[in-house]
Amino acid sequence: MAETTAHRPALVRTRYAETDQMGFIYHSNFFAYFEIGRCELVRATGMTYADLEMNGIQMPLKECGAQFRRAAKYDDLLAISTRVEVLTGVRIRFGYQVHRIAAGAATHLAEGFTDHLFIDRSGRPTRVHKRPEVWPALERLLALDTFPALDPDALAATADALLR
Amino acid sequence: MAETTAHRPALVRTRYAETDQMGFIYHSNFFAYFEIGRCELVRATGMTYADLEMNGIQMPLKECGAQFRRAAKYDDLLAISTRVEVLTGVRIRFGYQVHRIAAGAATHLAEGFTDHLFIDRSGRPTRVHKRPEVWPALERLLALDTFPALDPDALAATADALLR
Amino acid sequence: MAETTAHRPALVRTRYAETDQMGFIYHSNFFAYFEIGRCELVRATGMTYADLEMNGIQMPLKECGAQFRRAAKYDDLLAISTRVEVLTGVRIRFGYQVHRIAAGAATHLAEGFTDHLFIDRSGRPTRVHKRPEVWPALERLLALDTFPALDPDALAATADALLR
Amino acid sequence: MAETTAHRPALVRTRYAETDQMGFIYHSNFFAYFEIGRCELVRATGMTYADLEMNGIQMPLKECGAQFRRAAKYDDLLAISTRVEVLTGVRIRFGYQVHRIAAGAATHLAEGFTDHLFIDRSGRPTRVHKRPEVWPALERLLALDTFPALDPDALAATADALLR
Repeated sequence: MAETTAHRPALVRTRYAETDQMGFIYHSNFFAYFEIGRCELVRATGMTYADLEMNGIQMPLKECGAQFRRAAKYDDLLAISTRVEVLTGVRIRFGYQVHRIAAGAATHLAEGFTDHLFIDRSGRPTRVHKRPEVWPALERLLALDTFPALDPDALAATADALLR
Repeated sequence: MAETTAHRPALVRTRYAETDQMGFIYHSNFFAYFEIGRCELVRATGMTYADLEMNGIQMPLKECGAQFRRAAKYDDLLAISTRVEVLTGVRIRFGYQVHRIAAGAATHLAEGFTDHLFIDRSGRPTRVHKRPEVWPALERLLALDTFPALDPDALAATADALLR
Repeated sequence: MAETTAHRPALVRTRYAETDQMGFIYHSNFFAYFEIGRCELVRATGMTYADLEMNGIQMPLKECGAQFRRAAKYDDLLAISTRVEVLTGVRIRFGYQVHRIAAGAATHLAEGFTDHLFIDRSGRPTRVHKRPEVWPALERLLALDTFPALDPDALAATADALLR
Repeated sequence: MAETTAHRPALVRTRYAETDQMGFIYHSNFFAYFEIGRCELVRATGMTYADLEMNGIQMPLKECGAQFRRAAKYDDLLAISTRVEVLTGVRIRFGYQVHRIAAGAATHLAEGFTDHLFIDRSGRPTRVHKRPEVWPALERLLALDTFPALDPDALAATADALLR
């Protein structure tokens, strides 16, 4: 298990495969972007989502939703900001904001949430706060209850270094 | 433009490509299933969604949501029931129910909604009730405001004839 | 295990989610269509692909390829014809043809193949011809080594009964 | 149009949405990874694929193929190396290698190719070497005919700075 890392937006470059014939990113892809956001948020606790699964914890969705303000397009650089909105022993709810990063500015495109149950390998709900192998890391999510700061210039520079 | 057809659930066989490593259908695929449901609902008016686009009308999403009761799995036969919940000149909202059809029974897996704007080719909102080339067909959607009857035996028989 | 069924093309209605901003079906979706074709071919033996997995047999890809003659578009009705090109105890290769069915005619859009290994739950290659719980069904695939007949009118009628 | 950038592997973190119930990344996603590779390769010429489309040039697939040596899994960090294998006025072929980057080492997972036609907005083949608005940039692709060097430590460090 690694040490904890910074809480920051996840960066995603939209793919041609994700466009539709309106020339927009097809809406269901935002739920895959949200997934990237929450995986990176979990990683910031020092435990990855893959570690959680290896410990027999899975997090199927109970509910999800999204609101779209402006369309995303092909080759957009998106920042996915994620926070924990609810965390109990049996359930977790994440909130998301998606911004397009371009020309030194962040444009708010969409927001949403996903609500998850914690289940064990048998598919039954499990109480994660009674699981000492995962709770210390998961508990750190409680502190990640606000969206991280969004610095378009820094994000564009980081993206430059990697994604282009 | 074809004549109107029956209002009935759309049938979908889940794909291996849609599973995830929990052994469930990944949740974002339900939004593609919802899309099949509303396309078939629009087709029941005698005008297809493709016809709408050829008339310069597009329907990007404003909002969507889903609730999951039970997981769908690989090779499940799903019935997607769709109804119109709101239709004004500028906006349409569809509601969805997803059932698994197996052994003569229908199991309720999920429900959801999508909220759409009507826009024209320039990307601006358009008033469809003032477009005589599309409104007569779209107006028929107003009558499709309840979920169609769900007959598991009939659906399984139809699926047998085609999907297996 | 069900009885064997007819060897016939699988029918697929293309989805809006599968389009790209060229207005075509994004090419990688053809591999999901191929998957539908081979699943229906396996089903014709009286054993489903899901049954195979329950017997501990999985079929990951070793290789795949596709050639595209004409683009598929949104709302196209596609017929996926599948045949077995190679079947040994450790490996299976399927061939595919994709046609668009419209106006009583079939237009050849694409063809391809997928090459699979048989592995067991531990991830190791397994010899399926020594597995009496699956071989009698799999062996029936040897007879499915030609593409099924393609009757556009019959396919359109079947699709009418179900997919629209 | 931006200046040219380095020719280097593109980095991709696999998504949960891309797994299947074998616990592997579903094979068709590799074609989306290849797309990321070639988009970044085109970007290295100083012209993006989006710029090409704005100049009326599209690149639909004529053929594609992939060979899989080892499975990719959830949360893998992948390096997509891309080169140009053929470039004429009417056609371009890209080659790809995919490696998993972990623990300071690169493991070869897959390789493949995509073969594209250049077409114009009317859907007809076009001769890009006679289009002065795009050829100077495209011509730079001719020099990108070998796979870039693969330095696992540098890639892991870059990924650390961004993707986790």
